[in-house]
Amino acid sequence: MSDAPEETLDPADWEELRALGHRMLDDMVDYLRDVRDRPVWQPPTPAAHALIAGPLPRDPSPAGAVYDDFRAAILPFPTGNTHPRFWGWVMGTGTPFAMLADMLASGMNAHVAGYDQAASHVERQALDWLKELLGFPLGAGGLLVGGGSMANLLGVATARHARAGFDIRANGLQADHPALVLYASTETHSWVQKAAELLGIGTANLRRIAVDAEFRMDPAALRAAIAADRAAGRRPFCVVGTAGTVNTGATDDLVALREICDAEGLWLHVDGAFGALAALSPAHRDRVAGLGGADSLAFDLHKWMYLPFEAGCVLVRDAAVQRAAFALTPSYLRPVGRGPAAGPMEFADVGVDLSRGFRALRVWMSLRHHGSDTFGRLIGQNIEQARYLAARIDAEQELELLAPVAMNVVCFRYVPTGPTRAGDALDALNTEVLLRLQESGVAVPSSTSIGGRFAIRVAITNHRSRRADFDLLVSEVLAHGRAVARLAT
Amino acid sequence: MSDAPEETLDPADWEELRALGHRMLDDMVDYLRDVRDRPVWQPPTPAAHALIAGPLPRDPSPAGAVYDDFRAAILPFPTGNTHPRFWGWVMGTGTPFAMLADMLASGMNAHVAGYDQAASHVERQALDWLKELLGFPLGAGGLLVGGGSMANLLGVATARHARAGFDIRANGLQADHPALVLYASTETHSWVQKAAELLGIGTANLRRIAVDAEFRMDPAALRAAIAADRAAGRRPFCVVGTAGTVNTGATDDLVALREICDAEGLWLHVDGAFGALAALSPAHRDRVAGLGGADSLAFDLHKWMYLPFEAGCVLVRDAAVQRAAFALTPSYLRPVGRGPAAGPMEFADVGVDLSRGFRALRVWMSLRHHGSDTFGRLIGQNIEQARYLAARIDAEQELELLAPVAMNVVCFRYVPTGPTRAGDALDALNTEVLLRLQESGVAVPSSTSIGGRFAIRVAITNHRSRRADFDLLVSEVLAHGRAVARLAT
Repeated sequence: MSDAPEETLDPADWEELRALGHRMLDDMVDYLRDVRDRPVWQPPTPAAHALIAGPLPRDPSPAGAVYDDFRAAILPFPTGNTHPRFWGWVMGTGTPFAMLADMLASGMNAHVAGYDQAASHVERQALDWLKELLGFPLGAGGLLVGGGSMANLLGVATARHARAGFDIRANGLQADHPALVLYASTETHSWVQKAAELLGIGTANLRRIAVDAEFRMDPAALRAAIAADRAAGRRPFCVVGTAGTVNTGATDDLVALREICDAEGLWLHVDGAFGALAALSPAHRDRVAGLGGADSLAFDLHKWMYLPFEAGCVLVRDAAVQRAAFALTPSYLRPVGRGPAAGPMEFADVGVDLSRGFRALRVWMSLRHHGSDTFGRLIGQNIEQARYLAARIDAEQELELLAPVAMNVVCFRYVPTGPTRAGDALDALNTEVLLRLQESGVAVPSSTSIGGRFAIRVAITNHRSRRADFDLLVSEVLAHGRAVARLAT
Repeated sequence: MSDAPEETLDPADWEELRALGHRMLDDMVDYLRDVRDRPVWQPPTPAAHALIAGPLPRDPSPAGAVYDDFRAAILPFPTGNTHPRFWGWVMGTGTPFAMLADMLASGMNAHVAGYDQAASHVERQALDWLKELLGFPLGAGGLLVGGGSMANLLGVATARHARAGFDIRANGLQADHPALVLYASTETHSWVQKAAELLGIGTANLRRIAVDAEFRMDPAALRAAIAADRAAGRRPFCVVGTAGTVNTGATDDLVALREICDAEGLWLHVDGAFGALAALSPAHRDRVAGLGGADSLAFDLHKWMYLPFEAGCVLVRDAAVQRAAFALTPSYLRPVGRGPAAGPMEFADVGVDLSRGFRALRVWMSLRHHGSDTFGRLIGQNIEQARYLAARIDAEQELELLAPVAMNVVCFRYVPTGPTRAGDALDALNTEVLLRLQESGVAVPSSTSIGGRFAIRVAITNHRSRRADFDLLVSEVLAHGRAVARLAT
């Protein structure tokens, strides 16, 4: 080994890096403060793309030069969800305070598999607060994960372990057994298909149950499907209820689903990706009644708690079952009674990941700083804004609501006055209206299909939106609608 | 809806938040600069625990007060992996520059499912650079994920889809089929058990193949196991090779495994969680020869590329197969040809998560700033340090190496002079030596079991370590060993 002094990735000049950091921080604070003055979205320019691309950088570049490229080519071309008029898909807005918490978390770089360290206390405490807010007992199990898809997958995986009726960890689904069947509604988010596939259940054993006019799972249809599967020798094991569907914000009758699951011996998993957070609002928590009755619940703090990505969460009523579904202890993780690894790897033992970052810090610091009542009021504010937008749409002859507004999602379309147009023509017209609206940089709703028809979809999980933003949306849709309709005639 | 002005999570006073941010940044830069002066690890005090705990915070608290609690109760009690003498488990160190990148990423709060945005260009570019560094073709598929467990799981899930011989997405593992069998060595990390369980394969269909004296999978034993499974009517589908085992840093003969997989029509997945990164070092890349021949490869940038958590990566040689294993397009994600969602959700379509954060930024900025050659030199430096430590151990009569040092992992124990002690007594003695060392705050190795015996395990994925740190480790182990041995006699 040479006697040359070791290299490191620490800066040669700490003060230079510090100064750059201060510049970055100033820029980002300005960026967030002034977000309203910029377009919601704009496509990256070819010049920006060229700055991002390039051959493998084998040699170093000054930190400041790399940051200059970030400022020129990356920062101006965001997804758009930090903007007050972004209502596409379901994305939280992020917060300036959580951005600072994320810097602290990255600097500490904690590995939160377990270990006797502050980060584990922080995650445990954050989970306890979330259990209380969502009506779960303090003794329930929980885990912060990347997002809703993983949180939901872990819930269904726990259900599979608990209700298979055989040793799923040893045999998988490959020993001789009655086929396990999973139930969800036709409105359940696509994670349920991914989970059924990944867990080896298969889409052939995923029943998509019909919904009623308000897009809620039909309990009678669920009962009938369970009975049919039992008659065919299959084994129903889990029902997935939804609090806040992605298309329309509908919430299944969770109390009815709980009764069916009790009668049938099934696990009730609830996907509350954004909707579960309505429980934080005293004025609106009855919209998700029955949430606390679930065996497992998934939700995302990066959606309706407005925190930055990624921060999903799964809660499991019976913590012992959650551990039993996942825990294992290889020799290199054997607890030694004292020191940093005194105990079991409590977080790694209830999920997939062993290396886990410190996402709990942004949750803990944000709840401490803003207070849970503030989140509850903002969630209520978004629900009121959806109601306000629906009323504005109702009052306009050329706008048509396409689904009941159950919570914070509004699906509607532009319908020109004059001769009645075919459904396909209205689909094409509204697609063009949506694209013009997005491309103008004024607002970004997204789209979906309601009853087979193209809908402009506004999902409000945005703490920066104001009433005036929805007024502008209405007037812009009318203006684009009229312009496109004129072209189309 | 009331006419009261809307609330927001933005600060009432941006300048106050900005000032706090600058204070945080200064503190974190100092913290990282001075990390060497602090204990590697210390247990959180009861007072710290009390500050972290507490009833649900319903009301707001000033941002500065929350930060004061962070400084008092969280920052002083880290996992320890930022410290130059942390060599426990396999954890990267983090870097000051990546901390700044993480602040930028959190501020932008991009949702990287796909979308026409800078963040998607950044992830695509970062993946292309990683493909080149690891010997994968540019047309390969890739995805950044939370960590190695998920990256490995996705690799095996893709293998299952590609090699099942039936429609796994439709039928899962529940239709009539020959049992799918997965092969790994007895030294493969515990993720493989989790993956076999989660994917419905079952541990009964996971073969743990014996290793040779250098802890590498025995190809003859693998061939025999495959033949036995075929004879029993089962269907071998995937072999997991390892580049850098968790216990000793051994790398399987990947060329031999590739030949067996070719002959048998099996998928070769390689777990290169840390070891794959040795490919960045020209001086050491022959240690992981054959890496580029894998059908899929998993590795962690938060391990031996020193980046903060979480940054895992999976590469799949055949991008079309990767897509075919996972892609689906619900109505609310249907591409509309223009605007932010012009294209498919290219990243969501090759993994589990739909909501994905901007972890690509820290990868892209770190490669640009440091240059890949620098990472290669640091990886080589860690390998040289392991060799240096092994030589120091070899030279000490009271220290015994317990496994060959194949890369950056050193397993050893203290053996007192004088009468020979039983293995159990040496296990107890070395456990106590390790705990005293950890509790002293001087160094944090971890432990494992080698040939049934307790080993002090030093895994070097640390850009802050210097030769002198290993000298100190040797002298401290000797001192603790002698002290404990005296007590035990």
